[in-house]
Amino acid sequence: MAFISFPSTFIGTNVKAASFSRRSRSAVRTTPIASAVPRNANLKKLQAGYLFPEIGRRRRAYLEQNPGADIISLGVGDTTMPIPEHICSGLVGGASKLGTEEGYSGYGAEQGMGPLREKIAQVLYKGTVKSDEVFVSDGAKCDISRLQQVFGATATVAVQDPSYPVYVDTSVMMGQTGLYDESKGQFEGIQYMQCDAENDFFPDLSKVKRTDLIFFCSPNNPTGAAATREQLTQLVNFAKKNGSIIIYDAAYAPFINNPDVPTSIYEIPGARDCSIEVNSFSKYAGFTGVRLGWVIVPDELKFADGSAVRDDFNRIMSTCFNGASSISQNGGLACLEDSGRKEIEDLIAYYLGNAAVLRKTMLELGFKVYGGTDAPYIWVGFPGKKSWDVFSEILDKAQVVTIPGAGFGPGGEGYLRLSAFAPREACEEACKRLRAMYAGVPAA
Amino acid sequence: MAFISFPSTFIGTNVKAASFSRRSRSAVRTTPIASAVPRNANLKKLQAGYLFPEIGRRRRAYLEQNPGADIISLGVGDTTMPIPEHICSGLVGGASKLGTEEGYSGYGAEQGMGPLREKIAQVLYKGTVKSDEVFVSDGAKCDISRLQQVFGATATVAVQDPSYPVYVDTSVMMGQTGLYDESKGQFEGIQYMQCDAENDFFPDLSKVKRTDLIFFCSPNNPTGAAATREQLTQLVNFAKKNGSIIIYDAAYAPFINNPDVPTSIYEIPGARDCSIEVNSFSKYAGFTGVRLGWVIVPDELKFADGSAVRDDFNRIMSTCFNGASSISQNGGLACLEDSGRKEIEDLIAYYLGNAAVLRKTMLELGFKVYGGTDAPYIWVGFPGKKSWDVFSEILDKAQVVTIPGAGFGPGGEGYLRLSAFAPREACEEACKRLRAMYAGVPAA
Repeated sequence: MAFISFPSTFIGTNVKAASFSRRSRSAVRTTPIASAVPRNANLKKLQAGYLFPEIGRRRRAYLEQNPGADIISLGVGDTTMPIPEHICSGLVGGASKLGTEEGYSGYGAEQGMGPLREKIAQVLYKGTVKSDEVFVSDGAKCDISRLQQVFGATATVAVQDPSYPVYVDTSVMMGQTGLYDESKGQFEGIQYMQCDAENDFFPDLSKVKRTDLIFFCSPNNPTGAAATREQLTQLVNFAKKNGSIIIYDAAYAPFINNPDVPTSIYEIPGARDCSIEVNSFSKYAGFTGVRLGWVIVPDELKFADGSAVRDDFNRIMSTCFNGASSISQNGGLACLEDSGRKEIEDLIAYYLGNAAVLRKTMLELGFKVYGGTDAPYIWVGFPGKKSWDVFSEILDKAQVVTIPGAGFGPGGEGYLRLSAFAPREACEEACKRLRAMYAGVPAA
Repeated sequence: MAFISFPSTFIGTNVKAASFSRRSRSAVRTTPIASAVPRNANLKKLQAGYLFPEIGRRRRAYLEQNPGADIISLGVGDTTMPIPEHICSGLVGGASKLGTEEGYSGYGAEQGMGPLREKIAQVLYKGTVKSDEVFVSDGAKCDISRLQQVFGATATVAVQDPSYPVYVDTSVMMGQTGLYDESKGQFEGIQYMQCDAENDFFPDLSKVKRTDLIFFCSPNNPTGAAATREQLTQLVNFAKKNGSIIIYDAAYAPFINNPDVPTSIYEIPGARDCSIEVNSFSKYAGFTGVRLGWVIVPDELKFADGSAVRDDFNRIMSTCFNGASSISQNGGLACLEDSGRKEIEDLIAYYLGNAAVLRKTMLELGFKVYGGTDAPYIWVGFPGKKSWDVFSEILDKAQVVTIPGAGFGPGGEGYLRLSAFAPREACEEACKRLRAMYAGVPAA
């Protein structure tokens, strides 16, 4: 075999060519350096970068100006606790066996290992979902993008406002929208379903126009609102009446405590005719870096022509994806064994404990505080203020990274999201700093 | 926390509803079960299923009719050797450390770990590529789909014929093509660049119309042809003349022995202005189930408007993807250490040994045989025969699974692909059976 080798002068030549081309752009040039390939007009519509890398950039910029600053992150919802012992042994076992003749396996099914699909159906859905309706993946974000590919450029879309930015961004990328309207902070062609304190963070569906797809996240990222059985029944009835398909993002379902809050859309009668559910091991088990999620596409779900949505999703999964890592899938199996489930309960309890600490502090400081009881996110009102300004002020004065609500859509303006995914001591220290910062300052 | 729980009667209700709806489709029905969401017209254009699952289905069907048949697979190019010790220890270490406070990490950069990007640039590209031009991913198939998302529905595309089916399928899915033309076996709007024995499996570029993108795989899947420096220079000049972008799939580069065959497109002067390179650890290190690949997007690569292709690829990677598993990335780091590289050399030598065994047999049986010296695939001519018929005949008479050339495009008709990814004994046994089957039969 040969590894790649180059003439040593090679990169030098290119660098020269590139800088030459830059200098000569306005002068005579015989061979153009830029290709003749047009830029994808849909990507051009997108605003700035994807939210979370932007937060990272601002954090780094702050650190450059304030070297050595002791920053606490309550920003990106990234797990911080080590993976518990039994689940970790599943990952380690999955890796080790690849080194043995008996244990080695190559390509798996693009839809995931049979036993894991079975276990998700049995353990998490108590058998109300069939194993071949479960598609195992490398995570919910990737699945949302693949679902957009299933429905294509002509699909119309509704999203909660505020919402996880991936729904809107992937919709824009697919060409489902018009241009960005600066004055509204919205893309033309998307239905933004207002979710705020006035409507208990559940949209007034009588004001929502019919769309093909309804992205709905509960417990919600970023507001932390968890839709009740009654609210979800309204949503399912609305979708069925309109012949819409709900893409239900249940990635935060394990944080639900309230018995009136369903942990799956399929608890609602009729949901199997009109709903896809997206979920993930990221927040269940600290798998944000391990990468493992799943999607449920019920057999009953049909396009207008009567063909099965499941078949087209399967075609996308097998053509544009090659299965989640077998190592991650072995970790997923361990999650769903009894010892794994016990470990997950402890993990979730830990993060909900953090959420309680953050909630209490912000309430005591006099803010309006939402979420954080059935979700790992606390949504704090700063009425009349620009959320990016509040973000910068808190970063500057308390060295705490949060997420400005406006990053989740225009409906998030005036709010800040605090994440409970952090070590307990970090949450406590952040609270101490926020108390110092806001001491004596009348909130809002 | 609460796991999902349902009223126990729930699935019963749905099953009944579904079967009711099926019965009543032609009768009166008040609430329609099918949604009003139109099926994506581009997915409707696709022919049958994705090739490799189709091979699996035929194999299973054969086994059902012939229970206990001892089938040997020389079909899907899936690695079979265990992951060698040092590399496996990288994977195990990557998994174990997630269980510790010091070693735990959550979301990584969507573009991959810095040290791995650096190592790919330094070790595999000898520094002729910069680390921030390297995007680490979960594999080449997924990257091809993401690259199609970058260029969008208006991009025009050329592919080698025959070629890896993902180029054409993802192009159809993106809406870059017209309908399938049954008589030609081609999609309207795609440029099929004929590659056959007559042109040494390199297209006559004087006959190829300009397209925005040129998918080019070398060493080629399925033909095993490895383009020489001179051929690739022609290709790069052709792309530059037309302002096209080459998407160069180098997933089989480590199998190259011939010193006249470049292992990266960037060995060709000017390639950085017009080429993206896709690559993968799958065939380097038996990572087909581990999932790890990378893409190089040089800084110099520009759209017609002068904006950087790299920026849009970065936007797709950070919005539609969430990074490769950190465990897989630790395995990738181990691959690029000295001991890992030695292990990879041995693995590649083993599979090339298999290829030699298969080549020799087919040559001695009197077939025209191509590839297999700088590639793990052997391309065997069965002129005048339908390749799906030859596939079925060999499965039936020798219980050997191959891949019919027609599965790779109309240019593959009359050929069969044999994969060297198998245990040595399996290759030898397959050869014994093929010799028995074709003994005394004049080949073609």
